[in-house]
This record gives sequence, C-alpha cells and structure tokens, in this order.
Amino acid sequence: MQRIIGIGGAIVDKILLGHGSGGRLMHQLIREHFAIEFDIKSLNDSTVLDRINPNRLAFTTDSYVVSPIFFPGGNIGELAVYGTVNDLAMVGAKPLYLTAGFIFEEGFLISDLKRILLSMANAAKRAGVKIVAGDTKVVNKGKGDGVFINTSGIGVVAEGVDIAPSKIEAGDKVVISGTIGNHGIAVLAERNGLSFDPPVVSDTAPLNHLVEKMLETTKDIHAMRDPTRGGLITTLKEIALESGLCIEISEGAIPVASGVIGACELLGLDPLYVANEGILIAIVMPDVAESLVKLMRQHPIGKNTNIIGEVAEAPEGMVLLRTKIGGTRIVEMLAGEQLPRIC
Amino acid sequence: MQRIIGIGGAIVDKILLGHGSGGRLMHQLIREHFAIEFDIKSLNDSTVLDRINPNRLAFTTDSYVVSPIFFPGGNIGELAVYGTVNDLAMVGAKPLYLTAGFIFEEGFLISDLKRILLSMANAAKRAGVKIVAGDTKVVNKGKGDGVFINTSGIGVVAEGVDIAPSKIEAGDKVVISGTIGNHGIAVLAERNGLSFDPPVVSDTAPLNHLVEKMLETTKDIHAMRDPTRGGLITTLKEIALESGLCIEISEGAIPVASGVIGACELLGLDPLYVANEGILIAIVMPDVAESLVKLMRQHPIGKNTNIIGEVAEAPEGMVLLRTKIGGTRIVEMLAGEQLPRIC
Repeated sequence: MQRIIGIGGAIVDKILLGHGSGGRLMHQLIREHFAIEFDIKSLNDSTVLDRINPNRLAFTTDSYVVSPIFFPGGNIGELAVYGTVNDLAMVGAKPLYLTAGFIFEEGFLISDLKRILLSMANAAKRAGVKIVAGDTKVVNKGKGDGVFINTSGIGVVAEGVDIAPSKIEAGDKVVISGTIGNHGIAVLAERNGLSFDPPVVSDTAPLNHLVEKMLETTKDIHAMRDPTRGGLITTLKEIALESGLCIEISEGAIPVASGVIGACELLGLDPLYVANEGILIAIVMPDVAESLVKLMRQHPIGKNTNIIGEVAEAPEGMVLLRTKIGGTRIVEMLAGEQLPRIC
Repeated sequence: MQRIIGIGGAIVDKILLGHGSGGRLMHQLIREHFAIEFDIKSLNDSTVLDRINPNRLAFTTDSYVVSPIFFPGGNIGELAVYGTVNDLAMVGAKPLYLTAGFIFEEGFLISDLKRILLSMANAAKRAGVKIVAGDTKVVNKGKGDGVFINTSGIGVVAEGVDIAPSKIEAGDKVVISGTIGNHGIAVLAERNGLSFDPPVVSDTAPLNHLVEKMLETTKDIHAMRDPTRGGLITTLKEIALESGLCIEISEGAIPVASGVIGACELLGLDPLYVANEGILIAIVMPDVAESLVKLMRQHPIGKNTNIIGEVAEAPEGMVLLRTKIGGTRIVEMLAGEQLPRIC
C-alpha cells in the first residue's frame, strides 16, 4: 500500500525536513497521502464547517506520544482518533469533527505513515466523525520520536445533558463498562518484547456510540470519565476531589481479564493504575443503575459492564477500596505513573 | 516569576517524565501553572462552551516546533496563539476559543514554561480569544526538543462572508498588509547567533482585529492568506493553483524592511520565500482596493499595506513576478524550504 514520493525523479520513502516546510514536498505529501485517506482537499487551513444546530458545543484536545507507535490491538493513529472522540463523549457530546496535527521526526517511513493514516480514516468512520483540518511539521532526526499526533475535536451536547463531576451525589452508583488494564499492558508488552498467553491487546475503541445509547435511556448520568493515564484509581480520585465527595469501590467487583492479572503479577504492577483506552466510568442515580448496566452489557464494547461502587458523603475527596479480604483502604493517585508514554 | 513544584519536599525545577503521566505531579503542574495563566479549572477534559450563535463555525489546528523557542520579537507560545487565531481570521472567522496541547521533553525548565504560558495568556488576551482546554505530555530526554505546542481553534463566520481562493476573479487586486520576511530572519538570526543593525524582529501578531475592520468596510474580499511557511511566493502559488487563475505581482511594490533586505543579501536568501507571522494577503474586488488599503494603513499592524499585484485569466495556476528591472519571470514554490522549523 506504500506510495513513493518523488521530486525530480528521486524516490523518497522517508519523511525529509523539507516535508515540513510549506513547499512542494509538503504539498505532495498532503495531496498523495493525507488528502486521499481523509477525503479532504487540503490539510493546511481553517475549515468552515456545515451549519451546526445551535446546541452547546464541546471542544477538546489531546496529543499522543505513545511508544511504540504500533502495539497489540492498535496504533498511535487510531488511539488519537478514539481518544479525542472519547473525551467528547465523556461530557455527553456527540463528536462531529476532528483536526489532526502531525509532528514527524525526519526519516519517518512513508509506509508507516500510510498505515497510520489508513487506520485513522477507518477509526473516524467507525466513530462517525470527520477529520476536517490538519497540519504537518517535521523536526530534525533526534529531536522527535517517529511521530507525535495531536487531535482536537468538537461535538454537540444535547438539551438536558449536563455531565460533570460536580453533579454527583451521595448514593450514586459507580459503573464501569469493561475490564481494566488492557491498553497499558499491551503497550508495555510490545515495548519490552514480552508476550502473554492469553495475549493482552489494547482496548482502544470509540465510546460515543455506547454513550449515545446510555443517554437515550436516561439523563440521570451525573459524571463520566474514561480512565486513561493513571488508570481507574487516578480517575476516581479526580472525580472525588472535584466533587468533594467520597467514592467507595469494591475490588472484587472490578472486571479484570485473567491475562492482565497474570501480566501485572509478573511485572509487579497494580492494574488499578494501568491505563485504559476503551472503557468508561459512569456515576449515575441509584434507581437507574441496574437497567443501565443491562443495556450497556448488550453493547459489543460493554459486555463486561459492572457496578463497582458508590458515592458517599465522607470522607471528603477520598477514594476507598474495599479489598477482597474484607478490609478497606484509602487509595491515592501515584505521584508520577508506572508507565510513561502510554498514550 | 518561577514557581517550584515540590512533591514530598523535593524541589523540582524541570519537567520530569512523571509530569506527563496523569498522576499527582501532572495535576500539580496543571494547577500551579496552566490553570493560573489560562484562568481555567482543569487542562484535561472536554470543555462545554457557552452557547454560540448559529453561525457557521471555522475549525483549525497547527503544531508549533520553532527552533529556538525564544527569538527576537516573540516565542513559541505567542506564535502558537497568533498562528491559529490568524488561520481562523483568514477565512473571515471571528476567533473565539483555542485549545493548547504541550509535548515537553523531559528536563524542560519550569521557568521557561512559565515564560511561555504568560506570553500565551497575554497573546490570547490581545487576540480576544479564550484558551479553554489543553493537554500535557512528556517524552524522554532526546525524544523531543524542549517543547512543541499544538493549538486548535474555533471561530464563527458571519453571514455573507465567503472567503476562499476559489472565489477570486481576473481583475482582482492583491493587497499585502506589511513588510515581508521579518519572522524568518529573526528566527534564523537567533538560531545562528547573528545580529543585524537595524535589528530584525518577528512580526508575530494577531490579524483578526485588522480583518474585522476590513470586513466591516467591504464583503468583497475574495481570498485571504497569511504567508507563513514558504513565504509570499508559496502562498500566492497555492492560491493560483486552487483558483486556476494567474497572479501577477510587481517586485517593486512589495514592502520589505531594509534590515531584512540586508540580512537576506548577507545570507543568500530570497525574502519572497521567507516566513511571516503577522501579515496577510487579501485578494479583493478592484473597486474596493484603494479604500481598503487606506483603511488598513490606519491600523497599527497595517501601516505598510500596499497593492502588490492583480489576478489575470492566464497562464493558469501561475505566479508571475514583474522584476524591478522590467522583466517578468515565472516563480514557483521551492521543493522544500530555505529555513526549516520556522514555526
């Protein structure tokens, strides 16, 4: 599927500094690769969008620096599409448009670029969003690391949807949509040349279709988050701090795949802090929790949905873990993280 | 103005890998720096915006990898704000909201970060936009280059405004809002330890206020572009190709500061290809050109506005330069560019 970029007859199969400089090489790169995959005319300018209904807009950005860029179950390109789609979905927005900004290290293979662009185009199709504007820059060899991708996104928030950590209340149930730790372990395995049996693959996936179904059923979803960097505990701690309430979870209720448990034991990692890319936490009114879980389990990416805990008044800003052996302990964010450059 | 980030009593004046990992270090960095400068609560999630009038939206993105990050007249931070503001202004949009995504190289000085954030906050104020969401990532030492910044932006396009290269017509006048080459020469000078007398400083500036004034006067602006990477010629060539018309310019009418002329002679550069960050090209109906120029010259960043050429039917897709000595030559984009990493 690789295309060759030639200027003056020369065959160029790698990104050159000149590809980032606004001249003919850059235009050719955009025309022959980005424009085709993303079905757009140009990757350089502001795009005037079709008229959007006068709803509230959500706006988000994320840069992706995952290393390695290809890993079991995905690559940096689809991660960049789904990650930003998911950030929009977590405020209840229907994602519509993305931009994509690329920073290449000189020498990056055009064949790898092609693979990433194809995967981004497919991811955008699956999520139902359009990539409408973009940018390419090139830095000197040794001043980058293959490719970094930024995606920004906008979506519309329907009337009556108001999702934020500040909305949660004591008594609310904490729902998780799938097993934890898959993405982090998949990237770590690839980075270190490890393989597990059963294999662990990234859970990278768009959450917006699942969220759409959830919001069709109930507007009593108070908060949502995808537990990416820092994993489940860091995300719950953020919500606890922002709401000033306490979140209590039961270790035994948290779904973890056996492969992830095995890998974590081997590597001395705690799956509660390992990054995820295709699951969400929803904090919902208690009387809708059961029916919501039933609905979520019918969705292909929600099969392992479970209620893992609830919100309490106190102690304020805390996350409490009821362990499998019956104790309760306070859990905190790590200072840094177990695994850098996971997304 | 430097703040010290401490965890467990340790003094940390540099960016660590842990600052990009979603844990406590990252939250502290955001709380103590980004949140203060940008006057926002969090830099991590989708932001739901205030209701926007049901106009058409413009959406754009750009990554900034300029080297060095501080240069005469500006730095990477304000460049990132103004660059994206200007991309929106070039389609006639009123810029409203920006996101900011940072990729730090491990070891980046917190004091330099502070300087950049302050300058971004000031730039946003000057341009009249809000930075509403953001993201921070950290890559290992030797896998980045200090800091790269992505900004994405949205703006609204008023009724009746329809600005695009495809709208230009034979007979239209080509207007430039200021002297060319200042940004590229300023960055190059800093990179190579050169200084010029008179000194050359970057022209980095927000163009949206000037554009607003222009659009108040006339809707007969057919196309606009800020001639950044690749300079004046590359930008005109893009417009010629997109419109299928010919653009003829007069070398003698193009404003160039004497310092830039001198520097270009010394360095063997052609100012027509050197990057700009605070000027625009407007292609307008001939009968409004004179009054528009008069108006633009009254604006602080439009003092050197001039008509530099006009649009012709043929030869299709070409840019012709009438030289000072009376000849006419075809000018093309360079393959790469004279100066990599200029923005």
